[in-house]
Amino acid sequence: MIKFSDCVNGMRTSEIRDLMSMAMKPEIITFAGGMPNNDLFPVKEIDEIYNGLDDATKKVGFQYGPTPGYPPLIESLKEYLRSKNLPVDSNDLIITSGSLQAINIIAKLFVNPGDTVITENPCFIGGTSAFKSYQANIVGIPLDSDGIIMDELKRAMENEAKDAKILYLSPYFHNPAGIIYSKKRKEELLKFLAGKELILIEDDPYSELYFNESDKDLTVPMKTIQPEPVPICYTGSFSKILGPGMRLGWLLATPEIINKAQLTKQSMDACSSTFTQVLADQFLRKGKLRPYVERLREIYSRRMKIMNDSLVKNMPPEAKWVVPKGGFYFWITLPEKVDALEVLKESMSKGAIFVIGRTFDPEGIKNNCFRLAFSHTPEDEIDKGVKIISEALKARL
Amino acid sequence: MIKFSDCVNGMRTSEIRDLMSMAMKPEIITFAGGMPNNDLFPVKEIDEIYNGLDDATKKVGFQYGPTPGYPPLIESLKEYLRSKNLPVDSNDLIITSGSLQAINIIAKLFVNPGDTVITENPCFIGGTSAFKSYQANIVGIPLDSDGIIMDELKRAMENEAKDAKILYLSPYFHNPAGIIYSKKRKEELLKFLAGKELILIEDDPYSELYFNESDKDLTVPMKTIQPEPVPICYTGSFSKILGPGMRLGWLLATPEIINKAQLTKQSMDACSSTFTQVLADQFLRKGKLRPYVERLREIYSRRMKIMNDSLVKNMPPEAKWVVPKGGFYFWITLPEKVDALEVLKESMSKGAIFVIGRTFDPEGIKNNCFRLAFSHTPEDEIDKGVKIISEALKARL
Repeated sequence: MIKFSDCVNGMRTSEIRDLMSMAMKPEIITFAGGMPNNDLFPVKEIDEIYNGLDDATKKVGFQYGPTPGYPPLIESLKEYLRSKNLPVDSNDLIITSGSLQAINIIAKLFVNPGDTVITENPCFIGGTSAFKSYQANIVGIPLDSDGIIMDELKRAMENEAKDAKILYLSPYFHNPAGIIYSKKRKEELLKFLAGKELILIEDDPYSELYFNESDKDLTVPMKTIQPEPVPICYTGSFSKILGPGMRLGWLLATPEIINKAQLTKQSMDACSSTFTQVLADQFLRKGKLRPYVERLREIYSRRMKIMNDSLVKNMPPEAKWVVPKGGFYFWITLPEKVDALEVLKESMSKGAIFVIGRTFDPEGIKNNCFRLAFSHTPEDEIDKGVKIISEALKARL
Repeated sequence: MIKFSDCVNGMRTSEIRDLMSMAMKPEIITFAGGMPNNDLFPVKEIDEIYNGLDDATKKVGFQYGPTPGYPPLIESLKEYLRSKNLPVDSNDLIITSGSLQAINIIAKLFVNPGDTVITENPCFIGGTSAFKSYQANIVGIPLDSDGIIMDELKRAMENEAKDAKILYLSPYFHNPAGIIYSKKRKEELLKFLAGKELILIEDDPYSELYFNESDKDLTVPMKTIQPEPVPICYTGSFSKILGPGMRLGWLLATPEIINKAQLTKQSMDACSSTFTQVLADQFLRKGKLRPYVERLREIYSRRMKIMNDSLVKNMPPEAKWVVPKGGFYFWITLPEKVDALEVLKESMSKGAIFVIGRTFDPEGIKNNCFRLAFSHTPEDEIDKGVKIISEALKARL
């Protein structure tokens, strides 16, 4: 009677669950979770905010809010997005329960069973889960260090992905690939997509986390370059710039799409937590975001460098990676014959874990690669963990 | 390209939106929103809880949590449900973003386009929206003062609802009908459903809000009477016993269903807000729920009595209602020929609003009835508002 059994890949979900339970053990060095370290959260700032709220505002936080979002947060978020040159006036905004819910809503709006969705390969597992949960047929297109490979995309769109409804991309400090799209690639992409009947989801949870000011230019969203005629659904999140536990993200899209998204969200959870929306609004409004994010950039950048130094020192030459310019991840590619699961098993037995490649392959196959997250690993554990994984890998070559 | 346009009844949604914006005007007396009054929220208790949290726990609140829920809350909630004799050990629990998300998840798991779902008529609009959003065909069964009318249910299940997948009921202080199911009706229902291939959703957000201890017995969930062989999905919520802005509810169901529900939720929003889950856990754990709910019972009971006295005094004899034994609502039934929309227009122009009947009719037609919520209207406004509505009604008879 249950129709849902094959829509989400349970094997991968349980793999992640196993890893997470390993990650809870204090003796294990974990590069598995794609999340900030608990020690990085802005507890002091939120304490100050919470205790500065008057009772009337607190009470609003206990109450239902409008489905599109707590109005003051809509305003402060628009201000924030406006500062990135995003078209907040010609488009509409809805607050969602993480950007994942935004993706899920778009999937619900546009995907009928069997419809094709194009993603990157590798791809954020939340994206593939959301699409698969509506029984989409996913076509994954490989990436190079500049973004999605245009020839592969074009070829797919002339063949197996000809009638695709959605193209889902995560161009900025990609999870798991760690890359950022070049300006040229984004332009090629928009030129190619112009006039095509395809919804482009530009998922952007990490772009604030660039490591060098000189790379900030790379984080300019496609939605600002050419909002028309490519109908871009731009999604973002407070998860990496405040805390995932708030469960707050957003979708910026055409009024027509936002109107449908509101109806969908209304039937999903009525509204996102007003309580956490009140806090997020004050976080923006009181100017606490910028200094916090600057602090994060410094910390993540240092962790990235430590990890890169350790990788250079310890990894065998067969292992390849792109040095990330921001975000949370190294994506390690190995010779075809190597199975990352074997490396993981060995490495786990020695005390270090990560997420294997096939987790991020929409088909769940390609496994000569793995993801190392440096976002939540203390600096003094990184080198030790990388050494363990490098040894495990060498033993498999 | 958008496939979703007809799945949610936009007219009713916009009607509610209009009402809500009227309800914001200070000079309007509103019986419209099915929500607590802001002044009733346990702000002092949550202040105490928040400021009593150690930093480590706060940090957990900023982080992603496991999809089924924040483990301490799962434990404290199980304790709470166990005290109601619910089968928390043979069943599993998942924390959802309001009980609406629990209903939505069950709909996603079991409803294919065109499948039949049986609801009560009138029915909670969130329920009908959730089912309609998966393109269910809804068959609404009328209620009497003891619950769903068994003969009507039996007749429908032999005819137009023969292949129904789900039966959705809200037996305790029904929204909008205000009634509570009798013990006898629940027994008849379970006897009739035994062995049938039908998921019963027992939605229970209001049962704590009984007005007399002697009626507490009526709130015993069917899930406790006979959990087997009727596969009951029992849903509940913190919205009425802590605050809707927390967006926390739950689903108690068989391990098989909860396992699927986890995968679905994972693709919807990954987890509910850990931040608000931490607060809700402490609210239970520190024994703050019981005294708070006792206070609510007293306040709502007083408001109900004031409204009932005013209705008795002011309403024309053609208006009928059942005096609620708990919850938030009076459901006023009028002669067939009266259109509640006309009454509302007149009443709105004089300064009092409510929600018209067809909002709660799955077919959006039946309109000789309306809902008065007394939950968020100050005591001194109730009589004045009821008088306005009574006059408006008399003018329409």
